[in-house]
Amino acid sequence: MPTGELQNPTENGTEEDAWVWTQIKMEAKRDAESEPALASYLYSTILSHSSLERSLSFHLGNKLCSSTLLSTLLYDLFLNAFSSDPSLCSAAVADLRAARIRDPACVSFSHCLLNYKGFLACQAHRVAHKLWTQSRRPLALALHSRIADVFAVDIHPAARIGKGILFDHATGVVVGETAVIGNNVSILHHVTLGGTGKVGGDRHPKIGDGVLIGAGATILGNVKIGEGAKIGAGSVVLIDVPPRTTAVGNPARLVGGKERPSKHEDVPGESMDHTSFITEWSDYII
Amino acid sequence: MPTGELQNPTENGTEEDAWVWTQIKMEAKRDAESEPALASYLYSTILSHSSLERSLSFHLGNKLCSSTLLSTLLYDLFLNAFSSDPSLCSAAVADLRAARIRDPACVSFSHCLLNYKGFLACQAHRVAHKLWTQSRRPLALALHSRIADVFAVDIHPAARIGKGILFDHATGVVVGETAVIGNNVSILHHVTLGGTGKVGGDRHPKIGDGVLIGAGATILGNVKIGEGAKIGAGSVVLIDVPPRTTAVGNPARLVGGKERPSKHEDVPGESMDHTSFITEWSDYII
Amino acid sequence: MPTGELQNPTENGTEEDAWVWTQIKMEAKRDAESEPALASYLYSTILSHSSLERSLSFHLGNKLCSSTLLSTLLYDLFLNAFSSDPSLCSAAVADLRAARIRDPACVSFSHCLLNYKGFLACQAHRVAHKLWTQSRRPLALALHSRIADVFAVDIHPAARIGKGILFDHATGVVVGETAVIGNNVSILHHVTLGGTGKVGGDRHPKIGDGVLIGAGATILGNVKIGEGAKIGAGSVVLIDVPPRTTAVGNPARLVGGKERPSKHEDVPGESMDHTSFITEWSDYII
Amino acid sequence: MPTGELQNPTENGTEEDAWVWTQIKMEAKRDAESEPALASYLYSTILSHSSLERSLSFHLGNKLCSSTLLSTLLYDLFLNAFSSDPSLCSAAVADLRAARIRDPACVSFSHCLLNYKGFLACQAHRVAHKLWTQSRRPLALALHSRIADVFAVDIHPAARIGKGILFDHATGVVVGETAVIGNNVSILHHVTLGGTGKVGGDRHPKIGDGVLIGAGATILGNVKIGEGAKIGAGSVVLIDVPPRTTAVGNPARLVGGKERPSKHEDVPGESMDHTSFITEWSDYII
Amino acid sequence: MPTGELQNPTENGTEEDAWVWTQIKMEAKRDAESEPALASYLYSTILSHSSLERSLSFHLGNKLCSSTLLSTLLYDLFLNAFSSDPSLCSAAVADLRAARIRDPACVSFSHCLLNYKGFLACQAHRVAHKLWTQSRRPLALALHSRIADVFAVDIHPAARIGKGILFDHATGVVVGETAVIGNNVSILHHVTLGGTGKVGGDRHPKIGDGVLIGAGATILGNVKIGEGAKIGAGSVVLIDVPPRTTAVGNPARLVGGKERPSKHEDVPGESMDHTSFITEWSDYII
Amino acid sequence: MPTGELQNPTENGTEEDAWVWTQIKMEAKRDAESEPALASYLYSTILSHSSLERSLSFHLGNKLCSSTLLSTLLYDLFLNAFSSDPSLCSAAVADLRAARIRDPACVSFSHCLLNYKGFLACQAHRVAHKLWTQSRRPLALALHSRIADVFAVDIHPAARIGKGILFDHATGVVVGETAVIGNNVSILHHVTLGGTGKVGGDRHPKIGDGVLIGAGATILGNVKIGEGAKIGAGSVVLIDVPPRTTAVGNPARLVGGKERPSKHEDVPGESMDHTSFITEWSDYII
Repeated sequence: MPTGELQNPTENGTEEDAWVWTQIKMEAKRDAESEPALASYLYSTILSHSSLERSLSFHLGNKLCSSTLLSTLLYDLFLNAFSSDPSLCSAAVADLRAARIRDPACVSFSHCLLNYKGFLACQAHRVAHKLWTQSRRPLALALHSRIADVFAVDIHPAARIGKGILFDHATGVVVGETAVIGNNVSILHHVTLGGTGKVGGDRHPKIGDGVLIGAGATILGNVKIGEGAKIGAGSVVLIDVPPRTTAVGNPARLVGGKERPSKHEDVPGESMDHTSFITEWSDYII
Repeated sequence: MPTGELQNPTENGTEEDAWVWTQIKMEAKRDAESEPALASYLYSTILSHSSLERSLSFHLGNKLCSSTLLSTLLYDLFLNAFSSDPSLCSAAVADLRAARIRDPACVSFSHCLLNYKGFLACQAHRVAHKLWTQSRRPLALALHSRIADVFAVDIHPAARIGKGILFDHATGVVVGETAVIGNNVSILHHVTLGGTGKVGGDRHPKIGDGVLIGAGATILGNVKIGEGAKIGAGSVVLIDVPPRTTAVGNPARLVGGKERPSKHEDVPGESMDHTSFITEWSDYII
Repeated sequence: MPTGELQNPTENGTEEDAWVWTQIKMEAKRDAESEPALASYLYSTILSHSSLERSLSFHLGNKLCSSTLLSTLLYDLFLNAFSSDPSLCSAAVADLRAARIRDPACVSFSHCLLNYKGFLACQAHRVAHKLWTQSRRPLALALHSRIADVFAVDIHPAARIGKGILFDHATGVVVGETAVIGNNVSILHHVTLGGTGKVGGDRHPKIGDGVLIGAGATILGNVKIGEGAKIGAGSVVLIDVPPRTTAVGNPARLVGGKERPSKHEDVPGESMDHTSFITEWSDYII
Repeated sequence: MPTGELQNPTENGTEEDAWVWTQIKMEAKRDAESEPALASYLYSTILSHSSLERSLSFHLGNKLCSSTLLSTLLYDLFLNAFSSDPSLCSAAVADLRAARIRDPACVSFSHCLLNYKGFLACQAHRVAHKLWTQSRRPLALALHSRIADVFAVDIHPAARIGKGILFDHATGVVVGETAVIGNNVSILHHVTLGGTGKVGGDRHPKIGDGVLIGAGATILGNVKIGEGAKIGAGSVVLIDVPPRTTAVGNPARLVGGKERPSKHEDVPGESMDHTSFITEWSDYII
Repeated sequence: MPTGELQNPTENGTEEDAWVWTQIKMEAKRDAESEPALASYLYSTILSHSSLERSLSFHLGNKLCSSTLLSTLLYDLFLNAFSSDPSLCSAAVADLRAARIRDPACVSFSHCLLNYKGFLACQAHRVAHKLWTQSRRPLALALHSRIADVFAVDIHPAARIGKGILFDHATGVVVGETAVIGNNVSILHHVTLGGTGKVGGDRHPKIGDGVLIGAGATILGNVKIGEGAKIGAGSVVLIDVPPRTTAVGNPARLVGGKERPSKHEDVPGESMDHTSFITEWSDYII
Repeated sequence: MPTGELQNPTENGTEEDAWVWTQIKMEAKRDAESEPALASYLYSTILSHSSLERSLSFHLGNKLCSSTLLSTLLYDLFLNAFSSDPSLCSAAVADLRAARIRDPACVSFSHCLLNYKGFLACQAHRVAHKLWTQSRRPLALALHSRIADVFAVDIHPAARIGKGILFDHATGVVVGETAVIGNNVSILHHVTLGGTGKVGGDRHPKIGDGVLIGAGATILGNVKIGEGAKIGAGSVVLIDVPPRTTAVGNPARLVGGKERPSKHEDVPGESMDHTSFITEWSDYII
């Protein structure tokens, strides 16, 4: 994979998007040839389609349908959304690239497209969010419910999510109604961006660009996780975390101390460094 | 919504129940008219039914069925249970009201009825529990398994659960065999009410009325969480928590200290205040 | 149940396997007779099959199929795997015995075979792992994806897992690509055996024989959890844990202290003692 | 089988009906025991049900459902119809007896109940007819359409049909809107009771009691087929046929001649003698 | 219904088509209101769609799909065909009008659209035919096979069919590869337009405009059925039939005799007079 | 296609069978490449399978399954039958060759394998017949019922059928319990081989080798249709037909007269000449 090209996912969107779709088809073709038992699946989900939009619409329609919400209805819904709003497809490509670069277990774009429940939930969420902003709320909520049932990923359709997002493993992720997630964020499974209680209004976290949130972290309330911050696995965070700092523990503390927290240079949402802060975590005493 | 009427969910059960069903039909009618793409779904799940019992039985039967447990069988099972035990329907209405009052993201009763996996899992559990008490254990366990697969909510059919329960988001909730949950309790996702090991007998938590358990909290063993207590998100609780106190952290400590814990006046299971105790949580030092 | 026989699950594999299958049929027969509504399900999943391999292949094929991955294809895949590698069936029997002995809520072998999503996910994973080792990676990953969707259990097909494993409740379990799990291990729900970031290579935990990992524990990086160790619920572990010691908390500390940790005699993965270490956990101060 | 009892199907309706249901259960039990591969099917369709009404409702609901007309909806529809009108069940029993007595290939009541598309189409028609008479015509026509698709039996819901009917093989049967069929009639496959053209009103055949209509016969217009008449296979009949006479050929002629047709003593709809009139059919000259 | 407007179905195609679609929606709306049990079906098949093309594509996709040919694939196929070729939709409207005018049992356009297997088979055939002419023969034949399975209507995709066609009841219709059917033809069920044997080439009947073919008629070979001719039910026709004459019987003879056959004035394919020729059919001697 | 090889379908069975399977794979490969929309279908039904037996078992299992008779069960049943009795596969190959040679509309072996309902019904019948002879009658009858529902082809499982059979179009074919069909027979749609009434015993037609039976012919009773005879379309036959003669009409007469019927030289079941006898049919006077 020409890593150089992958470095600038936001430039030359259309050209890049086309390149990624070409890669996906090549991967699927190769896999279909090497594994006849999977060929039918690869043709129906990827190789029979003329574009990423159609492939995604088909795949999501068939994944999310139920006996009372038919695949044809959902397919139509997705296809209309992707056709009328090219930014949805660009965001999908940015997410595919994020998974491909950041997750060493992601062996190909098609692997992510077909198999990553976090990726699929995120793309379906973007369509639900679009419906929400169009005041088609009952439909958005019905779609939300299907995503939560099928992928165990529960993102409120009102939540705003950027591009280049990696929901890794994704099971159990909960993102509340007024949450905002920036660009190039990586979020592991069981992460909660939750609210503060029964009062409405703006009550969920705001996640800055490039943030990394470790598995099982719980962030509650209208708090701000600064750009490039890192939230350790299992942390419980209830107040703001400054940019490029690391919060760990339950209750979460800043690595380096509240007064002079250590600042890192990298963008954790992209570098995905989960554990190097261990040595700085004084309380970790095994 | 006439909030006043909503305050006393346990009085005038039947009348209240009828009122809620009427509201649900009105909401669904309005949504079907504004969103033709969803009308078919709304008619099949709500508007074609003459009662909440039938609507719920239909919806649960179609959600929980599989190729080896047919929807007609499950529909029959639910319908028989709801018909023969009116308390199941009253409990469902109490839960609908709980979601509607406590969760600001719950925009309507029908939204909860159709889309809340925690609500649906809880109603299906109540039927499984009824089967369990009738010594129809293999059937209860098969139903339990379907609920765990479809909703990722794993409540042992022997567990006893009160009314006015809100399982918010619900993914990952695990409630063990001898657990008991009181009335008007609110439980967030990833909460575990777990056992102590391989010895049988009474080994799971007892949750008092009005308790609030935050996301990801783990409560293990035959411990008593007193009435109106609050368990912070991500807490790990292994011993009793007194009434109207707050336990937070891993391991959990009482806010205000073991000796003179702070006592709150509200009923957290109803007020849903997740985070106001932050300022009192001395160790929270970001 | 003749507990004596159950003590040595690894001896006389074939004979033991046959005995367990006979028990399963007896249990299913008894349940079918007492509960006509469930008889169809019990005949299709168990009683119509001539062997545990066929029953499991049928059950997994029907559980994991989707509109694009047909049950007949999956059934064929499972049947071929189980037929060509008897160790898969022995491992399944060892897991059935593990559930039956260690989980007091497991009332019968057939209960586990039919209803335990952890058990089913583990058997399907073993087949995916076999495909992975045969370089049929796209198929292994497709199967992995289905397991993650249906059971909310996400075990990378490359991960190596021993025998006599109990994934209890199982929802939310994540096991990374280079993780290794020994024999007779018990792992509760929401447990993560995760990686360290975006660099490939050997980057996931190694779990020794007889380990018990409590609900919601997160173990990250290529760390070694020694034989017979116990990881408390909700712990976050990022470095090695010595054999037969107990690590608890976030960040995790050794019970008894880093220098002279308490050592226990039992095999926690088998004894399933989740909570007796409470009294030794000095920080636990409610 | 006690043939004596079978002779008077209309007496002691309820008692007879109960006896037939008992027989069906015994047959299904025997077959389930001898053929484990079929046991699941037999339990789901017959042995798990407490009455013939429920068994039929389940079987028809699952046979006639489609992705847009769910099995639960149809099951409900059938169950309500059978519960509110006992004559529907009596008619079903009379039809079961008719098949059992008249068709030597009918080895048991359960064989007919499960497998005879003519029997199943007729029972579903009776429910569609009931809906028609209740002015629920769109629903009646939707059901009619499903019967025509699934069984290739096309009986207009307005057509009136008696009891003790055998539609043998049944594929291709067409019965028009104003057709009337008496009691104890036997009709082979590809039989048409058709209309005269585009003018509405009473325009289809009236079939008397005990008539036998051979395979492929076409009867058009508001003509009267007298009681106990026999219509030869492949006949085209456009005018009245007197009682207890035989019409054969295309165009149909009376056996014995128009002036003095041969009259038979038996009731052909019950005796099912298709071919003994050959010798009297002078034109038959091979 | 303004019958006057219905007389000239071929003029003002687009306007007429729009009027029919409006009628269909009104009918469906009325029926949904009067019959809640059917409302879900009517919304999913008609009321949620913005055009007849989309409604038909949805309905055919869901009717004709199978576990190996998914509804989303077929929906896409139909939608593309209807969108790219408006004549397909005009033909559908002409067929709807034909059914509405000629069949007294056709109570509404929506009744025909939803329930007439002949209508649905014909529209699906037109798409298969289009694929055939585009040299997409394997796909055309796969669609042909689904139509034959689901509707028991077997029209070779190469057969050419005009507009204003009524396939009444339709079960068992067989139309061969080189058959041609003109405009405003009415064909009853079990009609065969068959070939002459194993030699290829032009070997099937040519049916002129306005022809009426009665139930069960068999027409074999490359024969010409002249414009406005009438073929009696059950006839076997192997040579040409002159325009506006009537052939009846097996073997078929011309009514009025071979030399001076009676000529009728009406267009039988539109007038649908099946039986008035009886009195002229000298051999009909019952 | 090397026609020479096709002439002797019964020699070198295994080698021929392998050659046909190779052809089928080549055809499917070619079609998958030219039509991506169909590739998924072609891979799942043909290209993913290692043998004709497996392909047929998969295809029949998915075609004939229902919500109460699962595809996995049927797949298993077919696979076991085909594996244990190679003559079933040889017969299938002989039937494929029969369709390919005799039907000019049969463009390839794969076309027949995938799409010919007569071919598929016949192969499924052979398995049902095998079950019948093994005294697994309830299962044979359940399979019979599915074939009759899905393909509208109703062949009693006790009926004996030879090899090299072409059921062309096939809809509406009915073959009774004691019927026997020889080798190299061609039977068109709507053909009935029916019984004589309600008395059991040997009561259905015996069809000799090489017979051709035209569309809609009805043959009733234990009559013998001699080797190489031809039955005209729409004929009604109730007594024996001598070898190599032609019977036509209703009632059927021998072409050439009863005393000195014309004898033909060809084998009509193979030559498929439906209509050349017209000129000899004196009564055919249009």
